[in-house]
Amino acid sequence: MPRLKLTLEYEGTRYVGWQVQPNGPSIQSTLQDALQKLLGEPRVFVASAGRTDAGVHATGQVACFDTARVLPMKAYTMGLNSILPPDIAVVAAEEVAAEFDPRRWSRGKRYRYRVSNRRTRSPLLRTTHWELFAPLDVEAMRRASQALIGRHDFSAFRAADCQAKHAVRELRQVRVEGASGDTVAFVVEGTAFLKHMVRNLVGTLVEVGKGRRPEAWVAQVLASRDRKQAGATAPPQGLVMEEVFYGDGPPPRPAGDTAVGEEDEG
Amino acid sequence: MPRLKLTLEYEGTRYVGWQVQPNGPSIQSTLQDALQKLLGEPRVFVASAGRTDAGVHATGQVACFDTARVLPMKAYTMGLNSILPPDIAVVAAEEVAAEFDPRRWSRGKRYRYRVSNRRTRSPLLRTTHWELFAPLDVEAMRRASQALIGRHDFSAFRAADCQAKHAVRELRQVRVEGASGDTVAFVVEGTAFLKHMVRNLVGTLVEVGKGRRPEAWVAQVLASRDRKQAGATAPPQGLVMEEVFYGDGPPPRPAGDTAVGEEDEG
Repeated sequence: MPRLKLTLEYEGTRYVGWQVQPNGPSIQSTLQDALQKLLGEPRVFVASAGRTDAGVHATGQVACFDTARVLPMKAYTMGLNSILPPDIAVVAAEEVAAEFDPRRWSRGKRYRYRVSNRRTRSPLLRTTHWELFAPLDVEAMRRASQALIGRHDFSAFRAADCQAKHAVRELRQVRVEGASGDTVAFVVEGTAFLKHMVRNLVGTLVEVGKGRRPEAWVAQVLASRDRKQAGATAPPQGLVMEEVFYGDGPPPRPAGDTAVGEEDEG
Repeated sequence: MPRLKLTLEYEGTRYVGWQVQPNGPSIQSTLQDALQKLLGEPRVFVASAGRTDAGVHATGQVACFDTARVLPMKAYTMGLNSILPPDIAVVAAEEVAAEFDPRRWSRGKRYRYRVSNRRTRSPLLRTTHWELFAPLDVEAMRRASQALIGRHDFSAFRAADCQAKHAVRELRQVRVEGASGDTVAFVVEGTAFLKHMVRNLVGTLVEVGKGRRPEAWVAQVLASRDRKQAGATAPPQGLVMEEVFYGDGPPPRPAGDTAVGEEDEG
């Protein structure tokens, strides 16, 4: 049965997150409902590259599903977009190999986390930024973030209920954008992520940005492997899953290494 | 009685516009209700620098009101912000001269109009951008826009129901930002504006950007003084009232010139 890959943009504000849950609408259930309507099939299951939490957004979430009815690709963009609510859209659609797995085939992901520095709350940034109401020392955060790049045990930055088998992950890039002005963005790219990892990294870097902790503290937290040492989890609305990277097949995996494409930022 | 000046940010999506209207909540009525609550006064009237239409946003709308009770300025930012809904906020507050008039004292305003060029609809841009689903020739729009700068009769760009006595206005700047990428912004600064003037200018420039009209057409539309010659009114959600400029008193006004601080973009 043909497999289709969809690239999705969504505003997560009014959803319980990617995954189907009993307490409200999820991105997954809304997309499945729209696909069932489009395809006239009673049950469509959609898998994703990663679960996003309630309030988290995406511009490049990747989802896939199998269907007996292959429509012209335009039906999956224009057609599906006319059925989906305004806060979810299909950006691109393509047919992929029957073995394609959006999570296991992922070779990495890039997230963006946005912060507002304004002194007063901002109606136009409130659903897409963490409002801190305080200036941040961007240069200090930039220097401190360098300790996170590379292959490390990120136990200090995983959620208490994170299900991953181990916490070794590789960060390719942590960029802090916006030297002056009202907003700061953290761009984080890595092979794979633990639950709440980006939000915990940001919550920790912000402690340095506020001058509450020295720059060297970030490396100490990482080395401690102790979640209690890190900063608070940054709120969900600042986070955007921007892009998921793929090659022609599943990524090469060294024996015993389950870090590539295994777990998900929530 | 002391007069207070408030600078406001708001997301206009769910409002009927600035002005009180019977068919739904307005920014003005929401602000007046919050002030009555804060001050414990039965009736507070708030005047603004300009009326914004339903769906139009602001980061620098200016409003003023009189009150017998002058509270510490923090009460008008922090205090009022705790009463106002999440989509309206007071950014700054100050006591001003008893003669201050946010409309008549204005020496100019700057608006920003944002457009999305993406091929598919964008959940994260939908309430703040005009989604065109087509590429735009930014350089052509930039060249064409130069004809609009300066003092002209803008009759071709005023709404049919515009109440202004005459249509002579002065544009100080029309900047087209964003050479490549997904979004384009039009930054328009002038002494004063006619109803729908910015949105009509943008709707006209976009005709050039799409290649439907030659660059010289914009100057011809302006010279025609005929609303029927111009492009369609761009939709409200792309527009932001960014800043209102003031001096120490009302602007100097040449005899017979009512263009400064007189009318309002809707």
